[in-house]
Amino acid sequence: MDRKAMYKLTYGLFILTAKEGEKDNGCIVNTVTQVTTEPNRITVAVNKKNYTHDMIQRTGAFNVSVLTENSQFDTYKNWGFQSGAQVDKLEAISSKRAENGIVYIEDECNAYISAKVVSATDLGTHTLFLADVTDACALSEDESVTYSYYQKKIKTAPKTDGAKKGFVCTVCGYVYEGDALPEDFVCPWCKHPASDFKRL
Amino acid sequence: MDRKAMYKLTYGLFILTAKEGEKDNGCIVNTVTQVTTEPNRITVAVNKKNYTHDMIQRTGAFNVSVLTENSQFDTYKNWGFQSGAQVDKLEAISSKRAENGIVYIEDECNAYISAKVVSATDLGTHTLFLADVTDACALSEDESVTYSYYQKKIKTAPKTDGAKKGFVCTVCGYVYEGDALPEDFVCPWCKHPASDFKRL
Repeated sequence: MDRKAMYKLTYGLFILTAKEGEKDNGCIVNTVTQVTTEPNRITVAVNKKNYTHDMIQRTGAFNVSVLTENSQFDTYKNWGFQSGAQVDKLEAISSKRAENGIVYIEDECNAYISAKVVSATDLGTHTLFLADVTDACALSEDESVTYSYYQKKIKTAPKTDGAKKGFVCTVCGYVYEGDALPEDFVCPWCKHPASDFKRL
Repeated sequence: MDRKAMYKLTYGLFILTAKEGEKDNGCIVNTVTQVTTEPNRITVAVNKKNYTHDMIQRTGAFNVSVLTENSQFDTYKNWGFQSGAQVDKLEAISSKRAENGIVYIEDECNAYISAKVVSATDLGTHTLFLADVTDACALSEDESVTYSYYQKKIKTAPKTDGAKKGFVCTVCGYVYEGDALPEDFVCPWCKHPASDFKRL
């Protein structure tokens, strides 16, 4: 099994937002797919470690804002590398509300999709949400970013802070300092497992 | 609802192959997604009108070959615009067999993934297969093709054959000649619905 072959799959990158009571939150996901056109339905796999996951599970609704090639690394850091349980990710962000009451992001995004959960399938580390598209709106003509483009052109090199021994998360660049990476280690930034780390 | 917003979602393009008895077959899909890394599992949504769909449903196994930017329009025509129920799509194709006995494609592909179905969810027009990755192999360093790249750089302009009135499938270029497109029309080439056609 060559795990690198899995990296050949193509993905976009999206800001997944939800609202529960007065709390707005969001995270970065890469797995939004239109699975049927009649009815218009999408799937998204969301890591259970994301607070947004729990909010969607409880409220049954979300928005997807489609990130473009113009998106900045700071945007990924804001939405992807910290938890909405501790931080208000929308504090410094310009956002609007869609008809479903949930925020969407205009800056660095070319469209948003509003969706209502039809079913939630437990996949262990993730939940796969199947959802009806209730609204969709194009925002700009900018090119959608691919995960590959993000890796090559947007993600900045990891800061090793002079560490001589350690492991770097190939997904987001987080550096774990130490001689050995625990097998059950999970990246505190992007929630990917030890198998996505490589030795510095 | 702005249906064009749905086109902002990013996809790759893949040859999905299956084997049933002595019959090899395959089709083009755009919805292969790794949904969990531990265990290594993918989902793929397959249109029920594809013969490959029925073969996978009966045999519970398939391969995914990842198409690259070097792929040619003829490849999409071979795998996507005709049915394996009538034609042997592998007749003029160079293919090898993976360990699971199912063919994979080396030409114009940069990796293949072998998978075993864990569950099949009925989505109406499509079935969503959740599958364990049983093997994966990188084949080349060529860039994976995106659906957007295919639309802009690979797909050739539709041949209207001088037709003055008609509708063209925006997905594959099939031309329907006539004054009105039936609402329940399904593209005979790529199986997309009437909503994906536009007036010539």
